[in-house]
Amino acid sequence: MAYELYYWPSIQGRGEFVRLALEEGAADYIDVARKSGASKMMKMMEGAGVTTIPYAPPFLKAGKLVIGQSANILLYLGSRHRLAPKPDAGRLWVHQLQLTIADLVKEIHDTHHPVASSLYYEDQKSEAKRYSGHFLKERVPKYLGYFERVIKKSGGPFLTGKKLTYADLSLFQIVSGLRFAFPNATAIAEKKVPNVVGVHDRVIARPRIENYLNSKRRIPFNQNGIFRAYKELDA
Amino acid sequence: MAYELYYWPSIQGRGEFVRLALEEGAADYIDVARKSGASKMMKMMEGAGVTTIPYAPPFLKAGKLVIGQSANILLYLGSRHRLAPKPDAGRLWVHQLQLTIADLVKEIHDTHHPVASSLYYEDQKSEAKRYSGHFLKERVPKYLGYFERVIKKSGGPFLTGKKLTYADLSLFQIVSGLRFAFPNATAIAEKKVPNVVGVHDRVIARPRIENYLNSKRRIPFNQNGIFRAYKELDA
Repeated sequence: MAYELYYWPSIQGRGEFVRLALEEGAADYIDVARKSGASKMMKMMEGAGVTTIPYAPPFLKAGKLVIGQSANILLYLGSRHRLAPKPDAGRLWVHQLQLTIADLVKEIHDTHHPVASSLYYEDQKSEAKRYSGHFLKERVPKYLGYFERVIKKSGGPFLTGKKLTYADLSLFQIVSGLRFAFPNATAIAEKKVPNVVGVHDRVIARPRIENYLNSKRRIPFNQNGIFRAYKELDA
Repeated sequence: MAYELYYWPSIQGRGEFVRLALEEGAADYIDVARKSGASKMMKMMEGAGVTTIPYAPPFLKAGKLVIGQSANILLYLGSRHRLAPKPDAGRLWVHQLQLTIADLVKEIHDTHHPVASSLYYEDQKSEAKRYSGHFLKERVPKYLGYFERVIKKSGGPFLTGKKLTYADLSLFQIVSGLRFAFPNATAIAEKKVPNVVGVHDRVIARPRIENYLNSKRRIPFNQNGIFRAYKELDA
């Protein structure tokens, strides 16, 4: 039975971390809201037919299970699609990395929405400028530097060593998104993290990912997602 | 062998969600930095003797494992200390709730640090005021209302039904902290979420938690943690 992925149909957003895992894992899935609109997704979030009500998309229907929170979905998919080790130690380590990526994703979101998600970017531009300055100067080097150290410590070329995991797919998405949103600042930051760039390059060259990125299933980056290209926020 | 918890010794912070689980789970643990200072913790974060380098505290040493990210630590502890179901479905559901609590924790942190963690509160007071206004008006009711619906759907009295899980301990901490940081706004918000308040009241009355809260092991709320009481930010 095909998985059902529920996520906003017009953005990559947090759903993209799940899409990349489903694609690399060669999983059979339906991107429900892209196929049939978002109304069923909205009703499920209100509790229709669901015991484990999700707070927000993305969520994944896997048989009888409805699983929310992107990192939690990846925890579920990882060991089932050879995207994470099965033993506890390795599974928890990959999940830990994913949770740190999730923290970074939230900080990236806040570059354009530092005051409130309910306000337009235009209504929080001055705060966004100040926030983004600190983010690019302090946070991007700290996070990417951390992942660089992790890759070195593991022996590489991936985050946890020789085998690709879903955390590598997510790190690819981070690098791609940062390049889209902050091309100048990212070019500078990348110079210090060759192994992180290496993960990006290895992921993008994988046949299933390449196929996906060149398909219509991949929604292009745009100004409604997590990563948004506002020139005034770039270094 | 006792667990070793590594976290900042002078605040509750994100470590408190782990401390509460260790206490309710009657686990044998050492709060390392409170006992011997933070230097070993700092060295481990630089990679000394650790393959799975944590990005930030808290992290837990469990035998040979070093586990970071508070929700990930709770995932590990949950099934081992009767604080979460063992089957996949229940384990993922409790973890999903915990990840949503973690999202809320980050938003609470940002009430006093909406621009940058590297700046003092005093250097981002106007942004904090604006952020907190939206947070208290929009986000607190949304999150607490979500947990209220979850409890109702499960039949209560806890988040997932009749049995307490680590997510209930964390929800207790959220209510306690919000009362400390935003007494006025929280009093108003609580009126609409009697079942969430019920979880708080049930957790605080549990013998091990009561014993912990009355002990010196519980660090009092203060102005350096996640929850900070700035009158000008309360409604």
